[in-house]
Amino acid sequence: MTHDLARLSLNTATTKHQTLREAVDAAARAGLPAIGAWRDRVQEVGARQAAAIIADAGLRVSSLCRGGFLTASGDDDVTAALDDNRRAVEEAATLGTRELIMVVGGLPAASAPGGPALPGPDGAQDPARDLVEARHRVAERIGDLAPFAAGHGVRLVIEPLHPMFAADRAVVSTLGQALDLAEPFPAEVVGVVVDTYHVWWDPDLHQQIARAGAGRRLASYQVCDWVLPLAADPLLSRGHVGDGYVDFASITGWVREAGYTGDVEVEIFHEDVWAADPDSTIATMVERYTRHVLPYL
Amino acid sequence: MTHDLARLSLNTATTKHQTLREAVDAAARAGLPAIGAWRDRVQEVGARQAAAIIADAGLRVSSLCRGGFLTASGDDDVTAALDDNRRAVEEAATLGTRELIMVVGGLPAASAPGGPALPGPDGAQDPARDLVEARHRVAERIGDLAPFAAGHGVRLVIEPLHPMFAADRAVVSTLGQALDLAEPFPAEVVGVVVDTYHVWWDPDLHQQIARAGAGRRLASYQVCDWVLPLAADPLLSRGHVGDGYVDFASITGWVREAGYTGDVEVEIFHEDVWAADPDSTIATMVERYTRHVLPYL
Repeated sequence: MTHDLARLSLNTATTKHQTLREAVDAAARAGLPAIGAWRDRVQEVGARQAAAIIADAGLRVSSLCRGGFLTASGDDDVTAALDDNRRAVEEAATLGTRELIMVVGGLPAASAPGGPALPGPDGAQDPARDLVEARHRVAERIGDLAPFAAGHGVRLVIEPLHPMFAADRAVVSTLGQALDLAEPFPAEVVGVVVDTYHVWWDPDLHQQIARAGAGRRLASYQVCDWVLPLAADPLLSRGHVGDGYVDFASITGWVREAGYTGDVEVEIFHEDVWAADPDSTIATMVERYTRHVLPYL
Repeated sequence: MTHDLARLSLNTATTKHQTLREAVDAAARAGLPAIGAWRDRVQEVGARQAAAIIADAGLRVSSLCRGGFLTASGDDDVTAALDDNRRAVEEAATLGTRELIMVVGGLPAASAPGGPALPGPDGAQDPARDLVEARHRVAERIGDLAPFAAGHGVRLVIEPLHPMFAADRAVVSTLGQALDLAEPFPAEVVGVVVDTYHVWWDPDLHQQIARAGAGRRLASYQVCDWVLPLAADPLLSRGHVGDGYVDFASITGWVREAGYTGDVEVEIFHEDVWAADPDSTIATMVERYTRHVLPYL
């Protein structure tokens, strides 16, 4: 069976235990044209060397994962977050991708060692649990970073995470909310990503994907499946396409109708997938993509 | 310390191992005026006897949990679901509550023994994963049940469940979506419930609570907290108010502004809470309600 893999990209998290070079070689062996790179694997060799490894294999970079974690309120923490995100922008530019995926961060209460303290005395609003204010801070930080990103030809790509991560990872939970955050900025400076694991449940998904397309903000399409039962760490509960409950036919069709012509990244975090032989993981990924995503793309 | 408990209701799931009579007695001992009853504990004694037990203790019923599971597509399964929901309506009427909480059910794929099969051949839409169609069926079944409920003076109260239950328990995931389902019907026939565990993360929550209030559809306010890490069964991951990340000050304020004057049910599913002495659980519940909910109500 020949596969049309012209838009399929291996996100390096899917074969987590490979170095960047190993992942690039495995993707190239399988006939994939692109790779979605995580910063840890890029930083092991440095962005310049990473760019060379990828280019030498004839691959392109579909995105860099990830910047973000922008919800801090203290001055030092804000400065540190902005510094780290500027480095991420520079790394993306060096790698030659314009798409920097951003996971925006959770509530301050989730950073407290030993878990959240009880809310304060009667009548007092608790800033550590104030979701509305945490979201305002994300908007402010995106504004701080946008000119720097624009100057580097890099787009800040806001990723809505599944609502079960709203406390500890991302106070942006829906595509509509991500688009609201993006809208004050030019489409080539702030975009959004559709990751099926995070947004498949959203009753407003069709409409918001159409809105993202109309605004030319749809920067990345990442696929993996929602499998049950959830893993003990729900972050590691992402399955191969077809193993779970996501309706890839419908969602991929909506992404196509929205005019998306970019790469499709397969990004799976799962202990079983990580324990498997990487070539076998990529073969499964190719087969599932060809069967359940490509026909609708 | 005196507590103003005039609006506090014990949901019987919180002290799961108690019979209805035990839960009613414990609530009355603690000075609570109301109980939210689960059908299993009601059915153990029969609805008529349950009503007598509750009335004899001087309590009222804030809601009956629960009807629903309306997503089946086969004729026999649809008939069975409607029959069961008509019985639930009758039980609510006998108990003297007008609020019947409805959990609408998940995807057909989640009912397959051994988990979902791979989607069908290339190019075919998979009905077992079709979330849009499952939601249409819920709307149809609500329409089927509405006249029967209206005839019994009972309101079908649609409960949006957290999106992490979208595959296996409820294809209604947001308050806005629940209100869209309710809107074709009179406010006294189809309403909605705000359960903080399920909706706390929603960026649209303030606006949708206001909408529910303006439409006189806010039928119940249930409180418990979002605690991390999630329990192995995330259904049993609900914590005491104050132990997690929910901003009860803000959400309770929104519920007050929406004009809600009904009972506040504490509904906790958690193995540790269930293992505790029920009187001690209720004492904690009273203390947390008084401290973190009542000041904003």
